[in-house]
Amino acid sequence: MQSKIKYRKKRTPKIAKQASDSLKIIPLGGLEEIGRNMTLFEYQDQIFIIDMGLQFPDEDMPGIDFIIPNIEYLLRHPEKKLLGIIITHAHYDHIGAIPYLIDKLNYPPIYTAPLSRGIILKRQEDFPDLKKLNIQEINAGQNITLGPFKIVPFHLNHNIPDTLGLAINSPAGLIIYATDFKFDLQPIADKPADLSRIIDLASPGVTLLLADSTGAENPGHSISEKTIMDNLDPVFREAQGRIILSTFASLISRIQQAIWLSEKYNRKVIIEGYAMKTNIAIAEKLKYLSIKKETIVNWQEANRLEPNKLTVLCTGAQGEPEAVLMKIVNREHKYLRIQKNDVVIFSSSVVPGNELAVQNLKDNLAKQGAKIYHYKMLDIHASGHGYQEDLKTMINLVKPKFFMPIHGHYSMLKTHGELAESVGISTKNIVTATNGQIIELGKNKIIATQKFVPTNYVMVDGLGVGDVKEVVLRARQTLAKDGIFIIVALVDRKTGLLHNDPQIISQGFVYMKESRDLINQTKKLIKEIVSSSTRGQTFNEGYIRNNLRNKIGLFLFKKTQRRPMILPIVIEI
Amino acid sequence: MQSKIKYRKKRTPKIAKQASDSLKIIPLGGLEEIGRNMTLFEYQDQIFIIDMGLQFPDEDMPGIDFIIPNIEYLLRHPEKKLLGIIITHAHYDHIGAIPYLIDKLNYPPIYTAPLSRGIILKRQEDFPDLKKLNIQEINAGQNITLGPFKIVPFHLNHNIPDTLGLAINSPAGLIIYATDFKFDLQPIADKPADLSRIIDLASPGVTLLLADSTGAENPGHSISEKTIMDNLDPVFREAQGRIILSTFASLISRIQQAIWLSEKYNRKVIIEGYAMKTNIAIAEKLKYLSIKKETIVNWQEANRLEPNKLTVLCTGAQGEPEAVLMKIVNREHKYLRIQKNDVVIFSSSVVPGNELAVQNLKDNLAKQGAKIYHYKMLDIHASGHGYQEDLKTMINLVKPKFFMPIHGHYSMLKTHGELAESVGISTKNIVTATNGQIIELGKNKIIATQKFVPTNYVMVDGLGVGDVKEVVLRARQTLAKDGIFIIVALVDRKTGLLHNDPQIISQGFVYMKESRDLINQTKKLIKEIVSSSTRGQTFNEGYIRNNLRNKIGLFLFKKTQRRPMILPIVIEI
Repeated sequence: MQSKIKYRKKRTPKIAKQASDSLKIIPLGGLEEIGRNMTLFEYQDQIFIIDMGLQFPDEDMPGIDFIIPNIEYLLRHPEKKLLGIIITHAHYDHIGAIPYLIDKLNYPPIYTAPLSRGIILKRQEDFPDLKKLNIQEINAGQNITLGPFKIVPFHLNHNIPDTLGLAINSPAGLIIYATDFKFDLQPIADKPADLSRIIDLASPGVTLLLADSTGAENPGHSISEKTIMDNLDPVFREAQGRIILSTFASLISRIQQAIWLSEKYNRKVIIEGYAMKTNIAIAEKLKYLSIKKETIVNWQEANRLEPNKLTVLCTGAQGEPEAVLMKIVNREHKYLRIQKNDVVIFSSSVVPGNELAVQNLKDNLAKQGAKIYHYKMLDIHASGHGYQEDLKTMINLVKPKFFMPIHGHYSMLKTHGELAESVGISTKNIVTATNGQIIELGKNKIIATQKFVPTNYVMVDGLGVGDVKEVVLRARQTLAKDGIFIIVALVDRKTGLLHNDPQIISQGFVYMKESRDLINQTKKLIKEIVSSSTRGQTFNEGYIRNNLRNKIGLFLFKKTQRRPMILPIVIEI
Repeated sequence: MQSKIKYRKKRTPKIAKQASDSLKIIPLGGLEEIGRNMTLFEYQDQIFIIDMGLQFPDEDMPGIDFIIPNIEYLLRHPEKKLLGIIITHAHYDHIGAIPYLIDKLNYPPIYTAPLSRGIILKRQEDFPDLKKLNIQEINAGQNITLGPFKIVPFHLNHNIPDTLGLAINSPAGLIIYATDFKFDLQPIADKPADLSRIIDLASPGVTLLLADSTGAENPGHSISEKTIMDNLDPVFREAQGRIILSTFASLISRIQQAIWLSEKYNRKVIIEGYAMKTNIAIAEKLKYLSIKKETIVNWQEANRLEPNKLTVLCTGAQGEPEAVLMKIVNREHKYLRIQKNDVVIFSSSVVPGNELAVQNLKDNLAKQGAKIYHYKMLDIHASGHGYQEDLKTMINLVKPKFFMPIHGHYSMLKTHGELAESVGISTKNIVTATNGQIIELGKNKIIATQKFVPTNYVMVDGLGVGDVKEVVLRARQTLAKDGIFIIVALVDRKTGLLHNDPQIISQGFVYMKESRDLINQTKKLIKEIVSSSTRGQTFNEGYIRNNLRNKIGLFLFKKTQRRPMILPIVIEI
């Protein structure tokens, strides 16, 4: 059951060795962002991990695929025992980093619920070089023991089934870990929230509650999936053409609703998009989805149906360039073109950063004649995260001594802390931590130490993991803004003069064909700079390069108010 | 009063000469975006223009400052008379392109309300090379005659004072132009909406209503500024530290509220940020703002005050890198550091595309100890645009024969069209046009022709207007994603072999210091490619370059899954 952390590099550990006997909680991510969730629980050199997620990049990280947690702390401490990893649910911000980190951690056992297991194993197929994962299934109500920790998973509502909260019996007392959750008393394709179970688990007295803060800035209660279904019903009932419903591929409950409503109104269903297809296949196999045998059709069958007898379930509601909805709009989809009376439903929120892409998609669909429904016009999407009243309810049920908000941007954690205060948790018992901060927990104390483990970004770009550093990103930002201006100067080593006209290559700066004057003036200036830099035979390539970079940079800025990257290549011949 | 359009370039006009006697309405922008509002009204070669705005760039336009309307149609038709420009209000999406276009149009007269005039003239100071503008003041209720058009401006509520709707008596009948508007029965620092005035103006019978669609996808009514003030009041009353309130610099009514609330709770006010200062100065001078003489203080006085006696009004609620709020957070502000009990109010919505920047700003403020209020937590911002019920009200008051939604993304126009249908406008009388489309209006007909004038983007980047073309943008996008990989190969013209090791310069691709293996392998491959390309003495620089570009591109993609721009520089020596 236990796995030694693989030894990587000899470095002087920056973290002092554990002095006290208290439990350490170390969030490697998820406290200053939505995503990259990964938290360590450490007691006397024994560690277990909750979640191993990825984070999608900000707009100032061009070219980056995603960011994964930094595990330097674990790699630096081969003496510590890694007991296992518990995965709370199968969203990528909780499982996405597994393929990138599991090998470095020497394949410790993973504990998770059946659906999450299925999705993790499916994704692992994309990484054929990795060894087989050691995944143990766990279910709400079962106990697992990891070293000094006895852990009882419990059912939580979220927007993917099989989401597990954790009651952790630790040497520092009982800890409740409320991962991404909401309370839904009328969920679809899931069990309703069981408040009494949470009260029951908490009844021995909870030392610490850690709880999801993603919805902390939204007043009121989150919406039930039942409401969504009630709102979608008339749309399905009245649509005269095809219904194209787009949502997150992991939103099994919404997919179930679309299927049930299609069956209710005699529509067959086409499933489009790789992620959507795989998730539905896994969920159906594990009986998280109920679909009548005759409901799902292929395009051959679909093309014989009247438009009002067909529903298309697909990905792409975030305006992703490669997803199905974008292919339809760009007329690149093999079978589907928008036609009059088609109804397109965006049954998902817009992930911050995707607003413009989604607007663009909606505009193109509207131009092609589709009728569009999206969540701002009608409640046809519910967040998977509890709102302020739900969050207060959780605190109220658990009645913890200490409270630590997790999962969300820092402003959300802080607001969540204020909510906790408003329902009676004393200010000094609330710890609003940042990534990497070592939190020490005893039965009667919690200390947010000023010790931090490394959490700087590890960026994944193509096959490269962690090889894109700040300097590379900064170069991309500069290149994106004003392009590059390359000067190739062949300098005669004897005369110190240019061998012939300097060559200029510009990309992303100005449109060369319409900028002849500017280019000619620049060439003239280059000649002057080279000849004045080599005067007196002191030929120094670096000096010429610097001179060119500075003076040409200044000249171009004066002429254009732009600052392209200036790259002088000086060749002696 | 009339001004000939300056002749620019002789080109064959693509637009057939006007055949009919009907009025042409030609939107040059604003129908497929928020921004770039500019609409031409043309009758028998006489044209007047409504608004001349700019649009902020999308995220796939790195380095671009903004986009302005394309006026090729006007420049191609010097025979047409330009009667004048009417500016409906002083937001940049309605006035921002004036300094870039007015000279090319040979300074036609501009007609606008006093506050708009003040703001336009102030901005013009940033363009000292331009001639003096010819601006005539107009006010609600006054008549102006421009050629065959008799125009009566009327008062509309928006989030800047002096917003004018236009009743246009034209040869094709009465047209109502409802620019950006909402109905506010309890506005602050503005007159309430005057519904009976609109009914009165429309009473002779309206041929066409053009109306703002920005809020068309929001159900219900927009919020009154009075509600905002009621919600801000307890925040001001209870704040124990300084209040830093950030909003749009043009939101005069919100600024008025902050000043009145400060005066009510004995706070002095500091104004920070260039745009905020100038707008307040203009608005105060023109009596659109009422501020007690002793309210505004400087930092010397402010520093002597208790924290709970000070309000700071500033810009930067969109997370703009150069604005005041960002400077405060980055500890670059000369006087202001966040301290405990400071309250920061984001009294503005988040412009799509700015979500991540704003979140980042909020997080940093929260970390530094500020208490944050933003519009999602509390109604402390009201849109300037009417929601669905307001839009229906306008249609109902005006009772037009024809309806044309304007101002907004295409999906908003389409939804606005559906709203018009729902209140009784016949489908065939609703024209949902796109940018550049020539709409022909007669007293009893409206035709959305399939003729279009050019509206492709004119991008402003630094001093360059329109010189950044698609090819430049595409280069910037490629450079942003995976950087550039430059190969400098000196080839001996006699042997066809490399003179020495090829030089490699990479920016934004991989971190060179940690990629020695990759670089060495690439250099080896370059040597092979060059020698095989020059075999048999057929030395051809272009051929070598192409070979290097393709083969090295493929090699690097295989190794990294990245596609940097490959730039081979082959020099014969």
